[in-house]
Amino acid sequence: MEDMVSLAQVTALDAKDPLSRYRKQFYLPEGVIYLDGNSLGAAPYAAFDALDVASREEWAEDLIASWSGAGWWTLGETLGDKIAPLVGASDGEVVVCDSTTVNLYKALHAALSLRPDRTRLVTEATAFPTDSYAAEGVAATRSDLTLDLVDVEDVGFADTLDESVAAVLVNHVDYRTSSLRDMERLTHQVHDVGAIVVWDLCHSVGVIDVDLGVSGVDFAVGCTYKYLNGGPGAPSFIYAAPRHHDAFDTPLQGWWGHTAPFAFEPTYRGAQGIRRFMVGTQPILSMRAMAASLDMYATVDMADIRAKSQSLTGLFIDLLDQECSGLGLELATPRDANRRGSQVSLYHEHGRRVSLAVTDQQVHGGYREPGLLRFGFAPLYNTHQEVWNAVTIMKRVLETEMWRDDRFGSFDTIS
Amino acid sequence: MEDMVSLAQVTALDAKDPLSRYRKQFYLPEGVIYLDGNSLGAAPYAAFDALDVASREEWAEDLIASWSGAGWWTLGETLGDKIAPLVGASDGEVVVCDSTTVNLYKALHAALSLRPDRTRLVTEATAFPTDSYAAEGVAATRSDLTLDLVDVEDVGFADTLDESVAAVLVNHVDYRTSSLRDMERLTHQVHDVGAIVVWDLCHSVGVIDVDLGVSGVDFAVGCTYKYLNGGPGAPSFIYAAPRHHDAFDTPLQGWWGHTAPFAFEPTYRGAQGIRRFMVGTQPILSMRAMAASLDMYATVDMADIRAKSQSLTGLFIDLLDQECSGLGLELATPRDANRRGSQVSLYHEHGRRVSLAVTDQQVHGGYREPGLLRFGFAPLYNTHQEVWNAVTIMKRVLETEMWRDDRFGSFDTIS
Repeated sequence: MEDMVSLAQVTALDAKDPLSRYRKQFYLPEGVIYLDGNSLGAAPYAAFDALDVASREEWAEDLIASWSGAGWWTLGETLGDKIAPLVGASDGEVVVCDSTTVNLYKALHAALSLRPDRTRLVTEATAFPTDSYAAEGVAATRSDLTLDLVDVEDVGFADTLDESVAAVLVNHVDYRTSSLRDMERLTHQVHDVGAIVVWDLCHSVGVIDVDLGVSGVDFAVGCTYKYLNGGPGAPSFIYAAPRHHDAFDTPLQGWWGHTAPFAFEPTYRGAQGIRRFMVGTQPILSMRAMAASLDMYATVDMADIRAKSQSLTGLFIDLLDQECSGLGLELATPRDANRRGSQVSLYHEHGRRVSLAVTDQQVHGGYREPGLLRFGFAPLYNTHQEVWNAVTIMKRVLETEMWRDDRFGSFDTIS
Repeated sequence: MEDMVSLAQVTALDAKDPLSRYRKQFYLPEGVIYLDGNSLGAAPYAAFDALDVASREEWAEDLIASWSGAGWWTLGETLGDKIAPLVGASDGEVVVCDSTTVNLYKALHAALSLRPDRTRLVTEATAFPTDSYAAEGVAATRSDLTLDLVDVEDVGFADTLDESVAAVLVNHVDYRTSSLRDMERLTHQVHDVGAIVVWDLCHSVGVIDVDLGVSGVDFAVGCTYKYLNGGPGAPSFIYAAPRHHDAFDTPLQGWWGHTAPFAFEPTYRGAQGIRRFMVGTQPILSMRAMAASLDMYATVDMADIRAKSQSLTGLFIDLLDQECSGLGLELATPRDANRRGSQVSLYHEHGRRVSLAVTDQQVHGGYREPGLLRFGFAPLYNTHQEVWNAVTIMKRVLETEMWRDDRFGSFDTIS
C-alpha cells in the first residue's frame, strides 16, 4: 500500500490534465457521476448540431442531392478514415457500416475465405456472447466446420492452435474483467499456425492506443457508441489489412459493396478495397452524429488518452484500497495498468443491489451477472475529482449498507 | 384519348383530397416539385422534434437509462408494429433492423432453412440488383444450391417453378417500370410447388395497400426511407408469417435475437417470434426519426393513399399524353392503374440529359440507365397541382430542347 491519497493530490492531477478542455464539449447530466461510457458514451454538443444540419438541411432541404453533395454516399469510408488513426490503420483500411455483430459475421466469413481448406474456428468461451453467437452462425453455414470455445486468459492460444484452425476471434479487452490482451503476441501465435485473426476492439477503441498495423492483425471489428461517443446504436466499424483487400470474400453481398453500384449489373462484383465490406444503405442520421464525435478525436493524442485512462482507473483502485477495504468488494480487474482497459470491475456478493444503490446515489456504472459492478472511465470527460467523489459515495453506500434497502428488490428474487 | 384535362379539374381534385392536410406536416424546399419520394421521402417536421428529444434528452440527459426508459431496447419491435397494419400484418410479425440487403439475406436463409432438401433459389433477372447480389451471396454458402434469375413479368412463374425450388424472391413493384405484381397469384404459384416466397416491398410499402396475411406470404422485406419517409438510410423492416416463427433459422445470430439477451449464455438460443431476426444493436437516432414519420400513417387510411397514388400517376400520364406527345417520351409504366405502383417511368433517347434539364427547372425526379426517367408520387405530400406544373415544365424543356444545352454534358460521354 502506498501513502494515503489526498484530495489535494487528486485536484492536482486534474489541474495538469492535458485533456481537461474536452469535458465542456460534452453534455453531462447535472449531479451525476457518469462512469458508464464503456456502455454508452456521453453526448458531445457537436452531435446535436450535426443532427440539426443533417436533418433540417441535408435531408429536408437538399434531399437526394445530399447523397453526393453532403457526402452521404461515402460517409462510411469518411468515418472509417477518421477511426483509422485511432487503431493504427491507414486511410482506406476501415469502413463504418452495420452492427458489430453483422461485422463480426462478415470478418469471420472473410477469414474463412482465406483459409478454405481448414476446418476449425476458435473463439473465446468468455467473450461478450454476441461474438460466439456470430461465430456459431458462421460455423452453421459449413458442415465441415467446428467451433471451439477456448479460454485465452494468461496462457494465450499456445495449447489450442494447430494447422486445422482457419480463424480465431479474440477480444482486445474482456468486457467483464477489463483484462487487456497482448495483441501482438496473440496475433503472432495465430499466425504461427497459419491461421487468420479477427480482433474485437469494442472495449478498447478510443481508450487504448491500438496498433493493428504494427501487430499484423488481419481483420478487426469495433463499436462506436462506447468510448467513441458515436450515439446510441451507432454503426460499427470493420478493418481489413490491405494485404487481404483483393482476396477476401463476403457472403453479405449488396449494392453498396459492388464495384460499380450505379451500373446496376445483374451479377455481383465486389469493390476493390475495404468498401467490399459494405452491403446496403446505411443510417445517415446516426452516422452524422457520430462524425461530430469522431472529429474531436482528430485533435487528441491517443497517448494522452491512454495515460489519463490509466491514471483514472489507477486512482479508482488506489482509493478503493484506501477507503473501502473490508467492505465486501473484490477487484476483478488486473492491477497492472498495462494489462487493463479503461474499465474497473468489482465483485460483491450482493453486486446487483450494490449497483442499484450506488446508481441511486448518482454514481452511474454498469452491472453484469454474477455480482459484477463495472465502472468505465472516459478520458475525454471524466475527471480525477469524479473518481474521488465516486469512491466517497461508494464507501457510504457500503458502510451504511444502503444496498439492503427494500427498494433494491427482495432478497428472494435478487442477490 | 379522353377530353382535355383542364387546370380547373386539377384544382378540384386537390380541393376534395382527403389527405390534403398532411402536406403541411412536411418540410418541402421552396420552389421545388419533389417527385423523388420513391428514392428518398421528404422530411416530416415531427422527425426534427423526435431527433431533438432523442439526442438532447434520451441520449444526453438520460443516457443508458433510455434503453428501457425511452423504449430503445424494443424500438425495432415498436416500429415493426407501426408498419404491420400498412402491409396487412399483425403485431409481432414485423421488426425494424439492419439494411434492406441484410434483411433479404436473412429472409432467404430463413426460407432455405424451411426447405433444406431443395436445391434451387429463384430471383428476378431485372430486380433491383441488390436483391440478386444478396441471393448470390446466400447461394455461395451452399455448394449444392443453384441460383436462377428469371423474368416474372406477365407470365409469372408458371414455366419456371418445380419441386426443386426452395425459395423465390420477387419484387412487389419493379423499380424501373413501376409494374405492380399480383402478390396473391404469384404467392400461390410458388406455394403450388411447395416453395417459400420472399417479397421485396421496397417500392410498394406506404403507397400500395399490401396484404401479406391474406396473400399467404411467407417472408417480406421493405424499405423505410422511400414512401415511409423514415429518413436517409433508415433501417429496413422484415416480416415472417407467424406459422414460420418457431421454425426458421438465421445464420446472422447475435445477442439482440437471443431468447435471453441479458443472461449472457455462451450458446445461441434464438428468441421466439419475429425478434429472432434481430442481430445487433440498432441505430437509435435514425430509428427515432422514423418513428415520428410512421406515427403519421397511424392516422391515414391506406385505401385513401392508394386512391390518391392512382389519381396522381393517372393524371401525370393523361397530361403527358395531352401535352407532350411527339416530344420523344415513351411511357414505360403500365397504363392500367391497378397494375402500377406510385412511380411513372418514361423512356427518352437522351434520358439522362432530359433528366438533368428537368431537374434544373426544379422538377426533381430520378434517373436510371438506360434512358429512364422516374417520377415518384407521394400521396401524403404531392398534389395534383404539382403534377400539372411538372408536366408544363417538362413540355417546355422538351419543346425548346433545353436538354441539348452543354451544361448537361458532352454528347460524346453522355446520352
